[in-house]
Amino acid sequence: MKKINTFLGVSLTAAFLFLVSGSVNAQGVSSDVIATLTDVQKYYRAIHIMAMLLLGFGFLMVFVRKYGRSALTATFLLVSVSLPLYYVISSLGIFAHKGSEIDALILAEFAAASLLITAGAVLGRLKMQQYLILGVLFIPFYMFNEWIMLDNGLGIVEKGQFIDTGGSIVIHAFGALFGLGVAISLTTKNEYDAAVEADATSDRFSMLGSMILWVFWPSFCAALVLPEEVVLTGINVILALSGATLATGFASLKLRGKIDAADIANASLAGGVAIGSVCNTATPIEAMTIGVLAGAMSTFGFAVVQSRLQKGLKMIDTCGVSNLHGIPGIFGGLVAMVVVAGISFQTQLIGIGLTIVISIISGLITGKILHLFGHRKTPYVDAEEFSVDD
Amino acid sequence: MKKINTFLGVSLTAAFLFLVSGSVNAQGVSSDVIATLTDVQKYYRAIHIMAMLLLGFGFLMVFVRKYGRSALTATFLLVSVSLPLYYVISSLGIFAHKGSEIDALILAEFAAASLLITAGAVLGRLKMQQYLILGVLFIPFYMFNEWIMLDNGLGIVEKGQFIDTGGSIVIHAFGALFGLGVAISLTTKNEYDAAVEADATSDRFSMLGSMILWVFWPSFCAALVLPEEVVLTGINVILALSGATLATGFASLKLRGKIDAADIANASLAGGVAIGSVCNTATPIEAMTIGVLAGAMSTFGFAVVQSRLQKGLKMIDTCGVSNLHGIPGIFGGLVAMVVVAGISFQTQLIGIGLTIVISIISGLITGKILHLFGHRKTPYVDAEEFSVDD
Amino acid sequence: MKKINTFLGVSLTAAFLFLVSGSVNAQGVSSDVIATLTDVQKYYRAIHIMAMLLLGFGFLMVFVRKYGRSALTATFLLVSVSLPLYYVISSLGIFAHKGSEIDALILAEFAAASLLITAGAVLGRLKMQQYLILGVLFIPFYMFNEWIMLDNGLGIVEKGQFIDTGGSIVIHAFGALFGLGVAISLTTKNEYDAAVEADATSDRFSMLGSMILWVFWPSFCAALVLPEEVVLTGINVILALSGATLATGFASLKLRGKIDAADIANASLAGGVAIGSVCNTATPIEAMTIGVLAGAMSTFGFAVVQSRLQKGLKMIDTCGVSNLHGIPGIFGGLVAMVVVAGISFQTQLIGIGLTIVISIISGLITGKILHLFGHRKTPYVDAEEFSVDD
Repeated sequence: MKKINTFLGVSLTAAFLFLVSGSVNAQGVSSDVIATLTDVQKYYRAIHIMAMLLLGFGFLMVFVRKYGRSALTATFLLVSVSLPLYYVISSLGIFAHKGSEIDALILAEFAAASLLITAGAVLGRLKMQQYLILGVLFIPFYMFNEWIMLDNGLGIVEKGQFIDTGGSIVIHAFGALFGLGVAISLTTKNEYDAAVEADATSDRFSMLGSMILWVFWPSFCAALVLPEEVVLTGINVILALSGATLATGFASLKLRGKIDAADIANASLAGGVAIGSVCNTATPIEAMTIGVLAGAMSTFGFAVVQSRLQKGLKMIDTCGVSNLHGIPGIFGGLVAMVVVAGISFQTQLIGIGLTIVISIISGLITGKILHLFGHRKTPYVDAEEFSVDD
Repeated sequence: MKKINTFLGVSLTAAFLFLVSGSVNAQGVSSDVIATLTDVQKYYRAIHIMAMLLLGFGFLMVFVRKYGRSALTATFLLVSVSLPLYYVISSLGIFAHKGSEIDALILAEFAAASLLITAGAVLGRLKMQQYLILGVLFIPFYMFNEWIMLDNGLGIVEKGQFIDTGGSIVIHAFGALFGLGVAISLTTKNEYDAAVEADATSDRFSMLGSMILWVFWPSFCAALVLPEEVVLTGINVILALSGATLATGFASLKLRGKIDAADIANASLAGGVAIGSVCNTATPIEAMTIGVLAGAMSTFGFAVVQSRLQKGLKMIDTCGVSNLHGIPGIFGGLVAMVVVAGISFQTQLIGIGLTIVISIISGLITGKILHLFGHRKTPYVDAEEFSVDD
Repeated sequence: MKKINTFLGVSLTAAFLFLVSGSVNAQGVSSDVIATLTDVQKYYRAIHIMAMLLLGFGFLMVFVRKYGRSALTATFLLVSVSLPLYYVISSLGIFAHKGSEIDALILAEFAAASLLITAGAVLGRLKMQQYLILGVLFIPFYMFNEWIMLDNGLGIVEKGQFIDTGGSIVIHAFGALFGLGVAISLTTKNEYDAAVEADATSDRFSMLGSMILWVFWPSFCAALVLPEEVVLTGINVILALSGATLATGFASLKLRGKIDAADIANASLAGGVAIGSVCNTATPIEAMTIGVLAGAMSTFGFAVVQSRLQKGLKMIDTCGVSNLHGIPGIFGGLVAMVVVAGISFQTQLIGIGLTIVISIISGLITGKILHLFGHRKTPYVDAEEFSVDD
């Protein structure tokens, strides 16, 4: 609809460029235009991440047969509460980052991704209102940790020294461990026997979500890298995901006798989680190797560890986020010490350790608060909160 | 496959730029390259809109349980008839716009979006061939209105004075009211009791369509704005959609007692509809507020108004497009008078009023014509027009 | 997460551009920046193709009701084995192409697309491990043919003389005929009566895959064209797909009496297949005409030819890839001789003929090898290889 403005704008821009290119070019006009184009390119990566948040995380969680509408509505609400909240807190100057507007959007999306990971751990055990409360409590904790890791908050981690470009630690491990904390505070004994039921249709929807995450993951990791690093980052992420997918196929068949669709949908993505920290610094061979290892350990987690962990910690991790985002995320943060030249081992270990501590403690606190707003012995199903015919 | 040409092209371009950058730069070479890159960036927004047209509108309409194949096929046909038709009419010089090739594609996509909104109003009451006739009749009417609003057609609205960047009025309200006109001309009494049936799977597909619309809506509104406005426009749309989604969650629970999946899938998008007119001029706080109000009024429409309106006007609006695109669209057009500095109240009101009149009248006419090609007492189901096993 | 680096980078870039724009511009700095932006734009087309590979081809194959998890897992595995393998072989200097990193990624994606077409021909008749073996065998054959057609391999086809920008021949026809070869070597008599069963849900998933392919097809064809050709290429592909979709609707109704959802999901895409060779050289009217013809002949293939072909050749083509990618692909390659000025008829015919011969022979060989790893009389279903509850 902005045809006239657009037409005028383009004409004027062209005329302006024409007139000034000889002289004013020397005063930076050209770099302004380039900066705008670069920001618009980042905008497309931001849209890719939006697809991951709503469609990707949303449908991945639809594997619970009788909880599809709820999982998708929760995703809608969590995204819609977290993005604006991140803005408001930033604009109040708390944990504020310097950066362009598009960078601020992308950082808010990263926070929403971490929140959705947390929600996966307690999926089916919160009412819709409680998801909103979870979002409101999660974002400040997340921003506190982000501030320490990336902006020298409290003076612990020097700026730029903690290596985590695609958020293996700050996004994935934080969200997973926060979620475990919430789950520990929330889960009751009665739930140990309530198995999550999937069917052919919920499995296909879940794989849809998984594929959307797979496809756009390169843009997640490349969202904030320099323009000249975008292509290499994208290729590294694709190789890591390919490696993890192959490893998952083999491991699932080997460990279970038959392939499990949930393994494929989830553990294949572990490559994307683990490559995060070094996505723009690894070589392609390193990327693929990291992916293979991450896929194998994630599948091992889903097939072997999960049931034992749940008994040991007395809690249920509905979507198995500890296997998909927790272990592979920490692995990714540690791998940076091998891959990245000149990295400070001490800073990297402090960053990882502190994130683990902050996320678990804040998750436990959040779980206790959520407990006050209601608590169930068995998982919710769609029919309780939604008007449904089936 | 164009490897060689690409390689040669890039090399030659590089060589050329190198040779001429000192002197010819002053004659606008650089601005040509920038114009090309800017057009390619618009192309990506055009692709995002294609995703909204086929996947978004298509699957949003799959909520009718027994009409999924039909809704998707109708979407395929409507898109495929309207895009080329818009081109043909434009190229004949009728209602023609000046603009680049990519602008022409985006304007054709806007027309297709408006047509799909119209189709939502009469979903299930047309044969496949009738959807095609609807498309053929709709496009000229749409272009006539677009010509008046944006290109000073008939000399009524001065160019650039009617504020509707993202098409709240020209796309959404026009499509919805045209659809109501068609529905009034078509609907028979027998249909009042034929409730639309959804189930768990059709609801999940519908939410898939909704999420795809949500994710790519920023690119719809930003499709034709200046490069330096893309990021702000995108953020505004995301905030408006977030506000509408939260308001919908609350309103649906409050007004119905239980949340309705169709409310979430539909009314959450009202924020995108309403922010359209001012998407590139509102502040983020205004955008979020507009979204909250639009989501609330849209949910109120779905939960309270729809059944009364259907009885009053003796017609059925299958997808509730009046609640999603009609009321929020007009609201968006009116809000511009508050938000945009220096706006002409008179022009804005004339534009809105004329669009309402033109859309309803042309919809009524189109409905009468469609009536000649067959008419049913009960909604169609897949099994009638498709060879199906179920 | 790369905020600091990004910030520094942007600042330094800006400062650098400012300082040098008067003088160093004349030494090509600007063209470096433009080259980077152009590569990033290609990256987005590469991501669109990833969406086609996993989501598009994957879900299009979900039309087999009891084989949804298997089809999606096979897609995951085929993509994950073929992309890295293409890289490895390239990096060993075998069939190597010169080109940027992003070009290499896109060429690898083209190979994966061709492989997925092949897999469609034998869908349901391979174990998961056999899909991997298929991938490992397919890629070298594909690269051998690509090398001959595009890189003057064996000195048969002069570089740049064979016209096939979007891969009608090298990608689509090759994959389809390779698949037929495999199918002929694999299919047993018992299967002739085992009809593929679809239902309302598998049909909707299949149309989801189809729509994703439709939406992103313009980026597939435009992936490697020059920046200034992207918009025209995109418009041509959209017109070709629109034409094919309309033709499919009419032809399906005419030939079968009722519309077949599988026709719509598949034959609508034949326009994208056929426009490939000339996507950046055809006029819009030619593009639309090519699409109409391709859609009509593809629907005729699905509705009439398929059953006869299967009896004649004693093999089953599960997804009908000969009708979607085979015939329309060859048609697209031949059409170039009419559309493209100054084309060498001889080269074009040699290229098409050789591709047909190479693809069928290598498919037959591959089928024989796959036969050694196991062979079935009836199609596989999910329950055999996956742990499922339904």
